[in-house]
Amino acid sequence: MSYYYQEIIDRVEPEDNHYRELARQHIIDFTMPRWALGRVLDLAVDMAGMTRDLKIPTRRKNIVLMAGDHGVVAENVTPQPQSVTFQMVKNFVSGGGGISVIARSVRANVVVADLGVNADLSEFVQSGKVIDLKVKPGTGNLAAGPAMTREDAVKAVENGMRLAEKLAPETDVFATGEMGIGNTTPSSAIVSVFAGVSDPISLVDKGANLPENRLRHKADVIKRGIEINRPDPADGLDVLSKVGGFEIGGIAGLIIGAAACRKPVVVDGFISSAGALIAASLCPVCKDYMILAHGSMERGHGKMVELLGKKPLLDLNLRLGEGTGAALAMPLLDAASALMNEMSTFESAEVTSEGL
Amino acid sequence: MSYYYQEIIDRVEPEDNHYRELARQHIIDFTMPRWALGRVLDLAVDMAGMTRDLKIPTRRKNIVLMAGDHGVVAENVTPQPQSVTFQMVKNFVSGGGGISVIARSVRANVVVADLGVNADLSEFVQSGKVIDLKVKPGTGNLAAGPAMTREDAVKAVENGMRLAEKLAPETDVFATGEMGIGNTTPSSAIVSVFAGVSDPISLVDKGANLPENRLRHKADVIKRGIEINRPDPADGLDVLSKVGGFEIGGIAGLIIGAAACRKPVVVDGFISSAGALIAASLCPVCKDYMILAHGSMERGHGKMVELLGKKPLLDLNLRLGEGTGAALAMPLLDAASALMNEMSTFESAEVTSEGL
Repeated sequence: MSYYYQEIIDRVEPEDNHYRELARQHIIDFTMPRWALGRVLDLAVDMAGMTRDLKIPTRRKNIVLMAGDHGVVAENVTPQPQSVTFQMVKNFVSGGGGISVIARSVRANVVVADLGVNADLSEFVQSGKVIDLKVKPGTGNLAAGPAMTREDAVKAVENGMRLAEKLAPETDVFATGEMGIGNTTPSSAIVSVFAGVSDPISLVDKGANLPENRLRHKADVIKRGIEINRPDPADGLDVLSKVGGFEIGGIAGLIIGAAACRKPVVVDGFISSAGALIAASLCPVCKDYMILAHGSMERGHGKMVELLGKKPLLDLNLRLGEGTGAALAMPLLDAASALMNEMSTFESAEVTSEGL
Repeated sequence: MSYYYQEIIDRVEPEDNHYRELARQHIIDFTMPRWALGRVLDLAVDMAGMTRDLKIPTRRKNIVLMAGDHGVVAENVTPQPQSVTFQMVKNFVSGGGGISVIARSVRANVVVADLGVNADLSEFVQSGKVIDLKVKPGTGNLAAGPAMTREDAVKAVENGMRLAEKLAPETDVFATGEMGIGNTTPSSAIVSVFAGVSDPISLVDKGANLPENRLRHKADVIKRGIEINRPDPADGLDVLSKVGGFEIGGIAGLIIGAAACRKPVVVDGFISSAGALIAASLCPVCKDYMILAHGSMERGHGKMVELLGKKPLLDLNLRLGEGTGAALAMPLLDAASALMNEMSTFESAEVTSEGL
């Protein structure tokens, strides 16, 4: 095992309970009935515990969009051609994708990273618009063998960790996002392994637009992949290498790296949560730094949420990915931060706390 | 009936289906799987229908906070003294209240209006910080007689309508908010009347902080108020005058006025939804312009939502009021607007729509 990989994992510490308690005490003095802003206040306490800072800064938001391709598209699990991954990367780079638009709307920055796109992105890497973290140009077909070697799985995770470390000094809040035609298939495979289901059918869904009558086929492809590869659910690297994806490994690394740097990381939807499951397997304590953005429309997401043991903030029938759900959740973090910094207390505002 | 009141009601037209359809057609060309941003796209279609504008502007947000006092506090339905209403108005005016902070965070403006506070606010009216729409300094005790006369009910609604009309030229999106010690009691009474329940116990909750063992008493006060006053559920003005509140009437008027001006109006939580029920009773078509911000923690809110026939956007365990939930929902409207204005299409971005 690489030294760097283990070093970052070892650096992750749990949320700080002292700061959580300080935040709670501060909030109780706010001019409002006790905990009347519910989950926004829970968020404030969580982020104080993560950042060891009662001001919980949120201004500098970096949404990291990891792109990668998937050999399993050979099994006809998605109606889109693989070339759409590259087309969409170009769309993000020129600012017209869903995440580009919503990130601007919530004043977040988007960082696009190539973890394994099956195309030449050097033009965009050279112009600084895409960060080159490519492990290989696309995974192997998980239904016919491992998606990647164990070494490449470590490399994908490390690349995510390194990016988190690099961006951390200029980041208050991280978020995950992804693009990769076919990547709901490895994501469903990952949750199937961790959930220990015998038939993945309850954990597959239409992804970008697979017809309902093809879901049985998609589930069978995953089932075959699990039978052939026998990933060990106790070993996140084994799961990632056998049925995962490069961008999913990158997301796992980004989450662990953010946690090592004590930064909150907003986890987007279905594919990002697959990355979060890998991260939680490699480094359980990093879960303390995850904020689940939303409950995805993709069927298997509920099981992922259950395994992560966290409640998503939003429920808006989203199934786009790219980090869009994470971006839409950002204003709630901003509100939590604003309350911690600007809210009057009973004493300062001369409001009686009688009866509260 | 006043001429103005009826004129505004008559001016409200349904959402425009032509603009809804144009919005839908535009969205289908976005570089994403069909309707992959779910409720954010639904919002875009709704707002296009309301505003007759595919750009659905959202920049100028006016959250109107209506304040009023309630004679029913004489029945010990709330542990806070009535003076807190005025104290909190001062807190909003100086920018330290929950709504002040969250409104700044989402770049919304807060307009504070006095519909019936039992205190002299002339200092704040003169300095332009509070809009004087006072009907009377507090309602009568609804458990002992009508909360207000029918004439005063019309006046409260008209005052809300007038404010909406006045603000409309400088407003893209309205939102409702309120402050009034004791106002969960009339709100529970209103939903009890419209729901036709024989015992309001399932529709009362702790409001600002009523102990659990006082809920039966609160329900009995409401029950008595309904038995004494016999409000007619088919007549919203009768319900408002007998068991309502001035700020609740103001909210109803603001919603109808916003609808008359074809502006979306984001309805906050429990008390605002009581106002929305009155508005829907007086002018059913104004429901087309309502956007329910969030599902409140206050028990009776679920029934209000059911009666309004709309699904709230957020579910964050909020129970503060003031317009805070509406403010927290605003970034979703901004995102919808940004998508309509900035999103690339398959053709413009040269992304294949194959398989979508």
